[in-house]
Amino acid sequence: MNVIEVADPADERLADYVRLRDTNLRRSLEAKHGLFLAEGEKVVRRALRAGYQPRSLLLTRRRRRVLDDVLDTFQAPVYVVDDAVAEQLVGFHIHRGILASFHRKPLPTVPEVVASARRIVVLEDIVDHTNVGAIFRSAAGLGVDAAVLAPRCADPLYRRAVKVSMGAVFTLPYARLTDWASGLEDLRRSGFTLVALTPAADAVPLPEAVHRDGKYALLFGSEGDGLSSRWLDQADVRARIPMAVRDVDSLNVTAAAAIACYELMRSA
Amino acid sequence: MNVIEVADPADERLADYVRLRDTNLRRSLEAKHGLFLAEGEKVVRRALRAGYQPRSLLLTRRRRRVLDDVLDTFQAPVYVVDDAVAEQLVGFHIHRGILASFHRKPLPTVPEVVASARRIVVLEDIVDHTNVGAIFRSAAGLGVDAAVLAPRCADPLYRRAVKVSMGAVFTLPYARLTDWASGLEDLRRSGFTLVALTPAADAVPLPEAVHRDGKYALLFGSEGDGLSSRWLDQADVRARIPMAVRDVDSLNVTAAAAIACYELMRSA
Repeated sequence: MNVIEVADPADERLADYVRLRDTNLRRSLEAKHGLFLAEGEKVVRRALRAGYQPRSLLLTRRRRRVLDDVLDTFQAPVYVVDDAVAEQLVGFHIHRGILASFHRKPLPTVPEVVASARRIVVLEDIVDHTNVGAIFRSAAGLGVDAAVLAPRCADPLYRRAVKVSMGAVFTLPYARLTDWASGLEDLRRSGFTLVALTPAADAVPLPEAVHRDGKYALLFGSEGDGLSSRWLDQADVRARIPMAVRDVDSLNVTAAAAIACYELMRSA
Repeated sequence: MNVIEVADPADERLADYVRLRDTNLRRSLEAKHGLFLAEGEKVVRRALRAGYQPRSLLLTRRRRRVLDDVLDTFQAPVYVVDDAVAEQLVGFHIHRGILASFHRKPLPTVPEVVASARRIVVLEDIVDHTNVGAIFRSAAGLGVDAAVLAPRCADPLYRRAVKVSMGAVFTLPYARLTDWASGLEDLRRSGFTLVALTPAADAVPLPEAVHRDGKYALLFGSEGDGLSSRWLDQADVRARIPMAVRDVDSLNVTAAAAIACYELMRSA
């Protein structure tokens, strides 16, 4: 292992970790280098276990021993910094004291990802990384085999999504549609019944839309407007989560996704 | 109606809206004045409909006409400001262009809130306002009658909780336990079966824990550690959400709450 103490937050070797809350900067930096960040011991361990190759590890002094058991075989540099250096570097106090930068892997194609899947989620334009992470965590925990993302869906490997998913983004296989307009048709041809989740009153209750022995794709739309009319039209069935009558017209997309995955696991 | 243009972000009359992201400042300011903030047209309308009395309304110029239909009968001042003034005042760009400050109402007691309830959620130490708001939204939409909060649970009327709940914090009655240690006993004496949600492998699957015709209290613990051992011990039954076997050991608390409320609505 290759442990290096660094005292200067502007040190070039720490460039992977700069200004973590500057979304625009991070997007371009991470795309340019094909990297993503994981934070916290549990999530970093899961990324390693899932076979991601580290570019480097950043530990605060107080937490420097925490990953010693895996560092024996670790090739990438391990930077150890003071809390104050870490805070200046990333832009806030990292109380978990552990960050790691990993190389992304090439994404599989949609046909590869769905080939052996029976239950998938398809995320249209979920733009909030927190929501993408939360949906991955629920889907992975509730028996979904893979996720398919529309071209504009937020990146599951963005730091915030990784964190909220607790590493489920490493274990739930996913791929991205190259064409928003025709992508659903390909899924249908692969044998999936396309179930569009919507709060519309004339949609069928979800438990009536899923049955044993089918292959199902649950479609979820953006936080504000839900699924596009194009995807709603292309779906085989529009399903709603049965709700109580009250001054609440819908659930948020992560709650809806959790319930829908649960119902699918129970019924199908 | 009483519309006042204000050009100075430091104007005392705008003090309710100052530095919305400064959590410590906001907590003390809101407690001192017994106020809470709502943002966005839909949520502000819901607060009014729920009978909350406004202290004032803040509109950006571009959005000044949006609530005209309710302003006829509006006694509180309506401040109209430029986008730049709003941004300096609150500390970020408020793209919805509508904020309102409301008087809190006295909270009912726990016995008042649960008197006619059949299904309640009990939140122990959920410390994240986003999670409290999301749980209220799911609970209100899925047939829960009331919420009971442990003394340390985050405030449902904090801006972020109000926003994420989409106003469900106004319609779902709630009260706060005065005593963490003995509060559950009082609920049990009121006839509720106390169901502690936990990912523990030896807990019973949730569908087996709830039956038709019972009165149920679903207990949820903090984001990191779940329910305290004291509350787990006091519960009548420890229930888990059935999950798939994978590298995911639990759901996040908002996903778990959504599924549990859904299951309770379906089964009981």
